Amino acid sequence: MAVIVQKFGGTSVADAAKIRRAAERVINAAKMGLQVVVVASARGKQTDQLVADALELNPNPPKREMDQLLSTGEQQSVSLLAMALDATGYDAISFTGGQIRMLTDSAHTKARIKSIDAQRIHKQLDKGKIVIVAGFQGIDEDENITTLGRGGSDTTAVAIAAALGADECEIYTDVDGIYTTDPRIYAKAAKIKQISYDEMLELASLGAGVMHSRAIEFGKKYDVKIHVRSSNKETEGTIITHEVPQMEGVVVSGATIQEDMAKVTLVGLGNRPGNAASIFAKLANAKVVINDIMQTEVSKEKANLSFTISASDLSAAKQAVEDIKDQVACDSIFVRDDIAEVSVVGVGMRNHYGVAEKMFGALAEAQVNIDSITTSEIRISCIVDKDQGQAALTAVCDAFELDKSAEQRSK
Amino acid sequence: MAVIVQKFGGTSVADAAKIRRAAERVINAAKMGLQVVVVASARGKQTDQLVADALELNPNPPKREMDQLLSTGEQQSVSLLAMALDATGYDAISFTGGQIRMLTDSAHTKARIKSIDAQRIHKQLDKGKIVIVAGFQGIDEDENITTLGRGGSDTTAVAIAAALGADECEIYTDVDGIYTTDPRIYAKAAKIKQISYDEMLELASLGAGVMHSRAIEFGKKYDVKIHVRSSNKETEGTIITHEVPQMEGVVVSGATIQEDMAKVTLVGLGNRPGNAASIFAKLANAKVVINDIMQTEVSKEKANLSFTISASDLSAAKQAVEDIKDQVACDSIFVRDDIAEVSVVGVGMRNHYGVAEKMFGALAEAQVNIDSITTSEIRISCIVDKDQGQAALTAVCDAFELDKSAEQRSK
Repeated sequence: MAVIVQKFGGTSVADAAKIRRAAERVINAAKMGLQVVVVASARGKQTDQLVADALELNPNPPKREMDQLLSTGEQQSVSLLAMALDATGYDAISFTGGQIRMLTDSAHTKARIKSIDAQRIHKQLDKGKIVIVAGFQGIDEDENITTLGRGGSDTTAVAIAAALGADECEIYTDVDGIYTTDPRIYAKAAKIKQISYDEMLELASLGAGVMHSRAIEFGKKYDVKIHVRSSNKETEGTIITHEVPQMEGVVVSGATIQEDMAKVTLVGLGNRPGNAASIFAKLANAKVVINDIMQTEVSKEKANLSFTISASDLSAAKQAVEDIKDQVACDSIFVRDDIAEVSVVGVGMRNHYGVAEKMFGALAEAQVNIDSITTSEIRISCIVDKDQGQAALTAVCDAFELDKSAEQRSK
Repeated sequence: MAVIVQKFGGTSVADAAKIRRAAERVINAAKMGLQVVVVASARGKQTDQLVADALELNPNPPKREMDQLLSTGEQQSVSLLAMALDATGYDAISFTGGQIRMLTDSAHTKARIKSIDAQRIHKQLDKGKIVIVAGFQGIDEDENITTLGRGGSDTTAVAIAAALGADECEIYTDVDGIYTTDPRIYAKAAKIKQISYDEMLELASLGAGVMHSRAIEFGKKYDVKIHVRSSNKETEGTIITHEVPQMEGVVVSGATIQEDMAKVTLVGLGNRPGNAASIFAKLANAKVVINDIMQTEVSKEKANLSFTISASDLSAAKQAVEDIKDQVACDSIFVRDDIAEVSVVGVGMRNHYGVAEKMFGALAEAQVNIDSITTSEIRISCIVDKDQGQAALTAVCDAFELDKSAEQRSK
């Protein structure tokens, strides 16, 4: 019997009406003859309320106790969802992470999954029950409750789908799929029917919300077909899956813009071994998260080193490089926080020429100046002036026809 | 090292200020060099809110899922209390019922404790930690979460005290101890310093709130010294303990009144074997809880059988006896719901004469008519007209000097 995993986020179980609607989704799948496993997040603003309750008592609460506290949110959702299913005559059973032995390491608030007892779930499914599992949480070897951190419930869902060998993992959310770009900026953006894990990972790391990288990485590792779709509409969403040949016909799958960025450049850096290592060790110590790094030699002795970061890390980053400036024989430091990064992503790039040329051409035609360029195997990013960012994204989307579906473009 | 168990009810952890005050109580005990185990209930109205959330989705929710849902309330309290202790520099660790393997049967919503893994608690105490355990909950052998029903957190506390061999189990509540009678009716009521389990059981079954019978039974079975005291005042409360010789010097420890009562009498019941059994089987089927039963033969063939019940069960009880009336050859049925039961309780009664006489005398002097009388080894109860109930209680309290402490009376 085929198994499907359905994940409902906090907004999809926020109140009784929404829990009932989620239950309908579950019942529809059960009626199709599927064995259904449901993963649910905490209701609406429950987690925020619990965090506020904790901080009122302790500005720096022990992480183990935070996990003990926050995990109750999902436990409430799953029992309520089981009750809603029971009310319509369906037999459902809810489980905490501990009850299905979702075993994790002991890194409280950001634990990593080690194993799942799939037999405990199969046993209930084989009794004809709908199984509802609390997302976001697990237990460590000493039975302490752990949580998985941001995007944790998505990760739970994909991990369970992997453990059960499920046909599909549906992620219900408040958007109806992944779009070629942000429709708030480029209204003509088209919904993507199918996208590869690698493309989705690039898009996620470039700030295209919807799904957290960890869940996608899990899906990639265990080849779980992920279906991102709307909890309000019946329409198909976006399938995230392994790369299939026809994807290569599409050069660019999507485009993104990141606007809250800053760039730090160490000008005239002494070009000797160990300098880069020292700088990034210093930045890691200051807990600065680095996006991209660009370095070019400017003479035999000197290089320019730039890196991009989130704007909120800028003051910590500036302090860190000022502290190390003399040690690494750097002439001066140059900082920009008036920038945006526009990127195009597509696995088709690997086998197509002229993608960079087309992107730069589109930006030139729109009179957008390019500050810097970085690329990966399936991505090209350009840093531009912030006030030209949205125009740059529009120009790029037009050039790559991101208002059309992949089928239309690959014809 | 001596161990103490402290239990805080829902009102004692209702908000951040109260959680901090509870934490102070815990710290005071820790400062005295005691190993402290804390048991907490769900915060204030949390349980009511969760029940309402459940009923909105399902008027008859599955009991397993109710337990899964309601147990989160205590889990939140214990983690928050651990955070409050951490904030003041004390090392605390919170546990769910499952985490200390509070093993119960599988009777969801009214489970019975089978065993506790005391080693898990001792291990943490020996590391110097304050251990905080979620009250009211356990797990069954299949790791389903169970709850213990009414008074469950008290039972948890007493059971843990028994398992650890604790010196004392403190029950913090919003009253400052057990009184000789209800101070709302008899303002001169005196606080009882020490009372036996049996007396407390009689008082609890007669409606003297404060502690649930199950917790007292547990305390009696494992000889746990229970200290009922106020969470707002520093004063000593009431110690519930095994019977000690000096208790016998006091004839009557307390008096109670139950006002929401009804009495059903089967007049002229056929006096043959099996009739009583049939009647009470019928009543049990109708889920009527019986308080007291009184039967007297009135001729060779006929008897009168009366029983008292809670007023809310009256219509169900009437229907049940009407249904069985002919089968048991009963002439007529007589019902009263305008009654109250006044009782006196005391282990000293076993060795003292004249208690009944003194009680009846006091009632006669107050012009109170007695409808019926029942007694146990340590209790005498009189059913009187409801509108004379409070006057009857006052007369009895005056007669037995329940405005004085036991020490003053036994002199």
